[in-house]
Amino acid sequence: MAEANAGHCVAYGSDPYTEAAREAFKDVFGPQTEPFFVFNGTGANVSSLAALTRSWNAAICSDCAHINVDECGAPERGAGIKLLAERSVDGKIDPRAIERHLHCLGSEHHSQPVAVSLTQATELGTVYTAKEIKDVADRAHEAGMAVHMDGARLANAAEFLGLGLKELTTDCGVDVLSFGGTKNGLMFGEAVVFLNPEHAETFKYIRKQSMQLHSKMRYIAAQYVALLSGDLWLENARNANAMARLLAKKISSIPGVDVTRPVETNGVFATLAPELIEPLREQFFFYTWDEELPEVRWMCSFDTTEEDVLGFVRTLAEVVAGQ
Amino acid sequence: MAEANAGHCVAYGSDPYTEAAREAFKDVFGPQTEPFFVFNGTGANVSSLAALTRSWNAAICSDCAHINVDECGAPERGAGIKLLAERSVDGKIDPRAIERHLHCLGSEHHSQPVAVSLTQATELGTVYTAKEIKDVADRAHEAGMAVHMDGARLANAAEFLGLGLKELTTDCGVDVLSFGGTKNGLMFGEAVVFLNPEHAETFKYIRKQSMQLHSKMRYIAAQYVALLSGDLWLENARNANAMARLLAKKISSIPGVDVTRPVETNGVFATLAPELIEPLREQFFFYTWDEELPEVRWMCSFDTTEEDVLGFVRTLAEVVAGQ
Amino acid sequence: MAEANAGHCVAYGSDPYTEAAREAFKDVFGPQTEPFFVFNGTGANVSSLAALTRSWNAAICSDCAHINVDECGAPERGAGIKLLAERSVDGKIDPRAIERHLHCLGSEHHSQPVAVSLTQATELGTVYTAKEIKDVADRAHEAGMAVHMDGARLANAAEFLGLGLKELTTDCGVDVLSFGGTKNGLMFGEAVVFLNPEHAETFKYIRKQSMQLHSKMRYIAAQYVALLSGDLWLENARNANAMARLLAKKISSIPGVDVTRPVETNGVFATLAPELIEPLREQFFFYTWDEELPEVRWMCSFDTTEEDVLGFVRTLAEVVAGQ
Amino acid sequence: MAEANAGHCVAYGSDPYTEAAREAFKDVFGPQTEPFFVFNGTGANVSSLAALTRSWNAAICSDCAHINVDECGAPERGAGIKLLAERSVDGKIDPRAIERHLHCLGSEHHSQPVAVSLTQATELGTVYTAKEIKDVADRAHEAGMAVHMDGARLANAAEFLGLGLKELTTDCGVDVLSFGGTKNGLMFGEAVVFLNPEHAETFKYIRKQSMQLHSKMRYIAAQYVALLSGDLWLENARNANAMARLLAKKISSIPGVDVTRPVETNGVFATLAPELIEPLREQFFFYTWDEELPEVRWMCSFDTTEEDVLGFVRTLAEVVAGQ
Repeated sequence: MAEANAGHCVAYGSDPYTEAAREAFKDVFGPQTEPFFVFNGTGANVSSLAALTRSWNAAICSDCAHINVDECGAPERGAGIKLLAERSVDGKIDPRAIERHLHCLGSEHHSQPVAVSLTQATELGTVYTAKEIKDVADRAHEAGMAVHMDGARLANAAEFLGLGLKELTTDCGVDVLSFGGTKNGLMFGEAVVFLNPEHAETFKYIRKQSMQLHSKMRYIAAQYVALLSGDLWLENARNANAMARLLAKKISSIPGVDVTRPVETNGVFATLAPELIEPLREQFFFYTWDEELPEVRWMCSFDTTEEDVLGFVRTLAEVVAGQ
Repeated sequence: MAEANAGHCVAYGSDPYTEAAREAFKDVFGPQTEPFFVFNGTGANVSSLAALTRSWNAAICSDCAHINVDECGAPERGAGIKLLAERSVDGKIDPRAIERHLHCLGSEHHSQPVAVSLTQATELGTVYTAKEIKDVADRAHEAGMAVHMDGARLANAAEFLGLGLKELTTDCGVDVLSFGGTKNGLMFGEAVVFLNPEHAETFKYIRKQSMQLHSKMRYIAAQYVALLSGDLWLENARNANAMARLLAKKISSIPGVDVTRPVETNGVFATLAPELIEPLREQFFFYTWDEELPEVRWMCSFDTTEEDVLGFVRTLAEVVAGQ
Repeated sequence: MAEANAGHCVAYGSDPYTEAAREAFKDVFGPQTEPFFVFNGTGANVSSLAALTRSWNAAICSDCAHINVDECGAPERGAGIKLLAERSVDGKIDPRAIERHLHCLGSEHHSQPVAVSLTQATELGTVYTAKEIKDVADRAHEAGMAVHMDGARLANAAEFLGLGLKELTTDCGVDVLSFGGTKNGLMFGEAVVFLNPEHAETFKYIRKQSMQLHSKMRYIAAQYVALLSGDLWLENARNANAMARLLAKKISSIPGVDVTRPVETNGVFATLAPELIEPLREQFFFYTWDEELPEVRWMCSFDTTEEDVLGFVRTLAEVVAGQ
Repeated sequence: MAEANAGHCVAYGSDPYTEAAREAFKDVFGPQTEPFFVFNGTGANVSSLAALTRSWNAAICSDCAHINVDECGAPERGAGIKLLAERSVDGKIDPRAIERHLHCLGSEHHSQPVAVSLTQATELGTVYTAKEIKDVADRAHEAGMAVHMDGARLANAAEFLGLGLKELTTDCGVDVLSFGGTKNGLMFGEAVVFLNPEHAETFKYIRKQSMQLHSKMRYIAAQYVALLSGDLWLENARNANAMARLLAKKISSIPGVDVTRPVETNGVFATLAPELIEPLREQFFFYTWDEELPEVRWMCSFDTTEEDVLGFVRTLAEVVAGQ
């Protein structure tokens, strides 16, 4: 970014950094790829869905999908569509989520589903295998639907599976990908990546109208060049995943703290006594995932260190002990 | 209507028929009532919800609510809101549907629920008791939410319970009511009835922008005068409900046809062998409610006669026998 | 309508009246025609525009177009589009209104115009000739835009020109027509008429989501059968136009009252002393068109009689005399 | 920004940089000020307008307002409103733009105007005086409307007038300000500044739903701290304005190049022979403002140098000479 900051460039993306970033995406995801840069994850998800739908359409997703529960209704408002939230297992849906809506097709009384959205890694930190994605995509395409992937943590999933980014997306039939930048270490910026370029035709208007067009686009692009040109995306994900595994291992010996989900990527879900939460939160910020249990979510990131993890575990142990 | 058709009137509702209809509504639902006439049930429901919400808001409803499954996304598109569909029992939700969303209040990541929508009678033909409505309304108001009732079949519910329309709405704390006309025998027209007039202030703009303002409003109003001034609404409902009970009774002796839901109003739900559906549908139109079982829905209306019911039952018996 | 009221029909348009009305439209506008019935003029205009546009699109119209000034923002809200209002002369625009926006095509910073909307007769009561419509339509099609006609008073325009409805629409290149029913004498109901059927493909979803689908569609259809099967539409228009001409002639001799626009259809625009307006309005309802002059608009309709006109003129003369 | 990049912070704005930036805004615009950070100018303008309006509302602006011509319909789509574009003189509107719409207030047929949007400096580079802003704001408030200022170039206007930022906004009655960051030298980020905090109450939901909430908000905030804590905003504006004046002066002696607008801030508008534009654009990017004349717009920025200007003038002179 420091480099991009020197000198002047033509605005709105006609600059060498944006061109280099586009090339990097084509190298990673295949030559047909059409990437567009936007500001944030909400913007990436909503504008992706807008590209696949018209107002009487619906998108099928899991009941715990970020687009369903954490976007303040932006998909409904910004794309005008209905979300059909399907029951998930370990955060994942399968082709039956599509089949349950096939009887609606052609009936004007029902929002017409034309897209399926998968989150990879899921909101619960679990990972779809390549076969699971392909099964959903095949069923979707057969029914005339497109596949969107919310890939805010795609890098973490790829690292866990030991697969390349293209193997987990383009090769599985994903049509449009929200490829996370912010959660991968960027200051700001996300990418809407059309792996199937036929959906990209009118996207430049959607991006502008969705308030996601950055006049100084080079500042997003330069970060993506850094992330994708080498292995930075993978190193960042590897560290985050490893720190989460370390965290899960270390807390397993603390009495009354139970890890509740498979730790496949960079998040650890755990239940603990309700009265422990506030004292702990005074020192470390985290979300309560399920108020009733209660279950909390502890996230590791690209720059979490072993000291960070051990320090957190120490504090947790003290809070438990001091109860 | 023939009467309203003679002579000229000032447009958009400043006419004596509209005034008379407004008075009829005030007589029935209480003097504070502010009724507005619109074209159809979708329009009534969506514009009601628009009056209670802003775009970042949500409305809580049952998972089988008409607004959730049968409006082609019109609430999401027309009011811009998110629907939070809660699991129902016999088509009904209770105060826990509200409580499950209280933790979202005040967090910008979540659509803010500010309304609860109940369907009376429900989509499954069942009826909320006055106490059940009041319990939901009390919990909603306590949480700062308003209560909308989709009353397309409110008359049928009132007839079943032997209660007046006001006892089941205003007196229970319902704030806004979509009061069905078309399903009660009208040629066209529905009413959005603000039982709590403070939500009505800007509704005239919402109605116009929602494409629901009839320039010749007297043609809707005159029909409501006829419906509400005497007992016509009750007679119509009584007949429809009685015919549904008759139908349920008569088919109970047909082998392989099982009534699946309590017959409280004018609909009968039944399961039967899949191969019977098409032959039967060639002679009588009806909807399949659940494709998997399969379960069908047979509706009776204000002008269904005993001969209609007996004729249908005879055909059904023949189709079963001819299998 | 009395006929349609007897007996039962399948809902949502699968009935013989709707079929007959569809045939009547095909007879009048050409066999390729695809008509759809909706509730009112706002609904017809907004859903027509929704069929031609996506959210980043714009429609070009005149600065006095009903859709621009009298729909409470329903086009912007309901179809999500921008209206590009162009300066009109005598209520009409010409191909230059299109040409002024050609430089925007392809630039993501601008709403992309893909439709032109003409009002026939115009809001000022004037009439586009067939050639004027064709010139706009040719220029629009050349630029990849479709042509919508707001034909709330199309019958009046056709009567004035002595042309058939098809000669003024299909034959001129109009793609979608809002064909007025309410202003032509119907109790309620308008038709969205796709003269170019390729724009009709997804309209059934748009109609439902726009809250314009009438379950008892036969009540709209039966009225259109009556209007279009014979010459009723023409007789209604002929009377309205003749009464407006009579009105214009009679008031020409009243001092201080000046007719301000060509009286081509059923409206008379006039200026008069501001203090005359209220006394006159106490006896006859009418709109003030331009508050500054002031200019008022007096409309005649299908059932205005000579006695109505002469009575109005007498009152007007008295009000002027009593000044 | 380098500083903000070290260490970890709580997401979504609960960090010391955001707090410091909020304080800086309160110091500059008054203690009642409530600033919110968003991504770009479109987002700032649209979410500001959304905070002031509901869907049946309208905002009055000039016919050359950026929100009217350069946002791809984002205000209509994102806030759902209608823009009422009023004829401008030198890019400016005055209280008559409000008065022309007063007759619409209370009528359901018209979008209800509740906001006026002024651009400062205007799209033509001209500057509203403090009195001109106050006159519009007083008239707006009297009519129950709020005042939004698109201040993408507010710093340039303040520098030209020799006034402080508060004197040109809060003190004139501006209610909400889009305060430009990107055009003032920031990598990304804009501020929606509620000078009248009563409009800010629900803005956090609007920002999230408008896809403008940055999880790593400190990266925007840190830039604003740098811009506002000292005189950086003024120095940047001073340079840009001075370079535009220099440019205007230098080109005044080139034959066939005519400066067409008062050069009050950082833009120079000029007409020149059409055939000169392309050769010049091969070396310097700029927009053609009016295709018909043609008139072009040359912008100077915070980091334009005298060498840049002189180099441009030299090239322009060569292109003219080489004609």
